[in-house]
Amino acid sequence: MNKTFEELCLRKSVRDFRDEPITEEEKRMILEAALQAPTAGNMALYSIIDVQDQELKERLAVLCDHQPFIAKAPMILIFLADYQKWYDIFNEYTDDMPKLEESDFILAGQDCTIAAHNAVVAAQSLGIGSCYIGDILENFEVHQELFRLPKYTVPYIMVVFGKPTQQQKDRMKPKRFELEDLVHIDYYHQKDITETKSMFMKQSNKDEKALEQYIQAFAKRKFFC
Amino acid sequence: MNKTFEELCLRKSVRDFRDEPITEEEKRMILEAALQAPTAGNMALYSIIDVQDQELKERLAVLCDHQPFIAKAPMILIFLADYQKWYDIFNEYTDDMPKLEESDFILAGQDCTIAAHNAVVAAQSLGIGSCYIGDILENFEVHQELFRLPKYTVPYIMVVFGKPTQQQKDRMKPKRFELEDLVHIDYYHQKDITETKSMFMKQSNKDEKALEQYIQAFAKRKFFC
Repeated sequence: MNKTFEELCLRKSVRDFRDEPITEEEKRMILEAALQAPTAGNMALYSIIDVQDQELKERLAVLCDHQPFIAKAPMILIFLADYQKWYDIFNEYTDDMPKLEESDFILAGQDCTIAAHNAVVAAQSLGIGSCYIGDILENFEVHQELFRLPKYTVPYIMVVFGKPTQQQKDRMKPKRFELEDLVHIDYYHQKDITETKSMFMKQSNKDEKALEQYIQAFAKRKFFC
Repeated sequence: MNKTFEELCLRKSVRDFRDEPITEEEKRMILEAALQAPTAGNMALYSIIDVQDQELKERLAVLCDHQPFIAKAPMILIFLADYQKWYDIFNEYTDDMPKLEESDFILAGQDCTIAAHNAVVAAQSLGIGSCYIGDILENFEVHQELFRLPKYTVPYIMVVFGKPTQQQKDRMKPKRFELEDLVHIDYYHQKDITETKSMFMKQSNKDEKALEQYIQAFAKRKFFC
């Protein structure tokens, strides 16, 4: 088993960090890896905000679903879907401005996510843990003002980084669905409800009764609170 | 410099493959790495279609902007944003069905992209090249029918894999924007037009006149053809 493959497979989210900074050299490597990620047409439809100010970190901890560990992270990177630079350069050199469509936003989002994940994997290779924070997409307008974002940028994905405590290193990685349940050959196999339940029981390690309760609690917490 | 970091930085797209299969063991490792990727709330809001049928590959090559190399790829994976399994299990166990919103689709798209990129990096560590094909999002309805996709799935991102020819190994990786131009500290710095031009000139290694022509041709090809 090669080292990279092992790191990809063992990586799990880290939400509790040792009180130890990320050095400038480590940060530079993580950012370099992000910038070397694949990007559609080499357009780099993203930018990165390196959040250093402690007050901004505290605000993010509140705005992103009240998760205090965010404020304690030694490094926070926000990946913006960013068409601004291309808009500005087209505006300078072309007569007809391209009309940006939803698919352009999706492509920029893919660029963002791929760059973010290169950063996450690079960090892992340096013994630095990370956690994706999806909530950055919520409160969009507030974040846009907070970080002084121009019109053609969207805060798309956020990652917090830090060196894991021993407890976090020892924490079990949550079990994934099985490969045979997520991979389809040539055509999508739409599972019937028995197969669906079986897939969820295997992943959650629960019997049917426990699964039912788990799903009900999960739906309530996620969608109806 | 550690090996993983090196692989993240040196990886470039491969569009021409040696006539050599990807073994079952290699494919299994690539898929395993995808499935071990981070996913929001461990929901795995994606599925993967492993396209093996040659006729389907030929159709994809045509549908995805007429790129014949797609049909020659020994392995093609389509990552679907997939809420179907959660929809089905909620439908079985809860009275009120959660209403899926655009942010749920974006989250599923992030899951897809992160899983795809774990696959890409794992492949790289095995000497297997890859190329993202953004065009899978176009012709959405055709792809939905072609792969028999149910309602709550979207073909979000596609990657083709194969072992690179020597020419592809030797090919220069396109230069990225500079780190200082993409990374902002605390607040977005909106560049003025002089700074913007300078950023593009550095990345493209062109003087201003050549940049103007390049941007005009690029805009025409990308948006107005």
